[in-house]
Amino acid sequence: MPNPTAAMLVIGDEILSGRTRDANMHYLAGQLTEAAIDLKEVRVISDDRAAIIAAVQALSGAYTHVFTSGGIGPTHDDITAECIAAAFDTPIDVRDDARALLQAHYDRSGQELNAARLRMARIPEGATLIDNPVSTAPGFTLRNVHVMAGVPSIFQAMVASILPNLTGGAPLLSRTLRVTRGEGDIAGPLGQFAADHSGLSVGSYPFIKDGLHGSNVVLRGTDAAELDSAMAKLSAILTA
Amino acid sequence: MPNPTAAMLVIGDEILSGRTRDANMHYLAGQLTEAAIDLKEVRVISDDRAAIIAAVQALSGAYTHVFTSGGIGPTHDDITAECIAAAFDTPIDVRDDARALLQAHYDRSGQELNAARLRMARIPEGATLIDNPVSTAPGFTLRNVHVMAGVPSIFQAMVASILPNLTGGAPLLSRTLRVTRGEGDIAGPLGQFAADHSGLSVGSYPFIKDGLHGSNVVLRGTDAAELDSAMAKLSAILTA
Repeated sequence: MPNPTAAMLVIGDEILSGRTRDANMHYLAGQLTEAAIDLKEVRVISDDRAAIIAAVQALSGAYTHVFTSGGIGPTHDDITAECIAAAFDTPIDVRDDARALLQAHYDRSGQELNAARLRMARIPEGATLIDNPVSTAPGFTLRNVHVMAGVPSIFQAMVASILPNLTGGAPLLSRTLRVTRGEGDIAGPLGQFAADHSGLSVGSYPFIKDGLHGSNVVLRGTDAAELDSAMAKLSAILTA
Repeated sequence: MPNPTAAMLVIGDEILSGRTRDANMHYLAGQLTEAAIDLKEVRVISDDRAAIIAAVQALSGAYTHVFTSGGIGPTHDDITAECIAAAFDTPIDVRDDARALLQAHYDRSGQELNAARLRMARIPEGATLIDNPVSTAPGFTLRNVHVMAGVPSIFQAMVASILPNLTGGAPLLSRTLRVTRGEGDIAGPLGQFAADHSGLSVGSYPFIKDGLHGSNVVLRGTDAAELDSAMAKLSAILTA
């Protein structure tokens, strides 16, 4: 059975303006690979209602899971929850359990649960809350869309709380051969090798380091013995 | 007149698997902001023919410019050039000027211009070459799509060679106010401020540092005097 598929939707003007460097994509990519869920696409879009709704609908229909980051705080530019609800034509309002979480949190810290903070208790009907051990305000899962915060420490905690409940396929294993020859030198035999091993994924990722051209050749598959055997052959071919 | 718009398409399995952390998105985002070209969307997709063609067609139709990174090397998994040609139903073949560049480069370095390397001279009909001062193999611009290498040093050199020829709008300026209060405390007055200054973009980017919740509030606009005046008001409101 093929692995489940996933897309990520990063929501935030600050990434697109170059002000902030996104850290969540790389984190989620690594976690999903370990969980044997195939991340197929990432989109980064701005805090724009129409853009968010269109992207959620497109990705939700195309992949098993969609993970979003950003736009669920208390300020006027935090519009993700509203847009997710709109994408599925679902009502959204303050929910009692989310409000109770926030009320307890702000009571403890002696702060007021004001109107802005209460916006973070607005949850689309039928959604499941995602625990936020860092700052309490929850994320949520609606259908196959997991809606999480953009602040990396919160995003990572939310991913940790939902990933164990998502069923992945067979874990994808990889083996890497570092070759200090230009890709142009190895491309011929490597293409033949890839054709001979159609059950494996064969990628070549070039680098330039200290003026030296080289490539990391990565084999990916689900069978460790098959990978080891293929890697031995590849090593003989490329480093002969 | 509104600024020209742009999308970026990052092509590469290695980003989606978490093996490599993309560096080009953040670089391009900063460069485009300086050039007054509005980056509206980034997509990261795998080395998959159908996915590349669909994304190029969608983004090319929606934005003034599309910038791609990755997949133009000599190995079997480098399929970007073929896919760009297919996306526009344009023939692609080895082009004499691109071949001459490569021939001279490999003659100088005493390496063979073999069949794999010659693939890097395959250029869609009607495209303009993009100079590659790092490793010679050119990128190209076809219609509104700028096709560049994924290796960051090459990507950056290619961006530097094309950006001066793209006409941007009025440069977007920004002012940042760092507020060491939780977003929930400032959200009310900030929302009112944003409503009162609809000609500016007002964003709030929360952080947690050493357990302290705060936010960078960023004003963006094209008029420096207007920004300074607004920032003085904002500072009085939020730090009063």
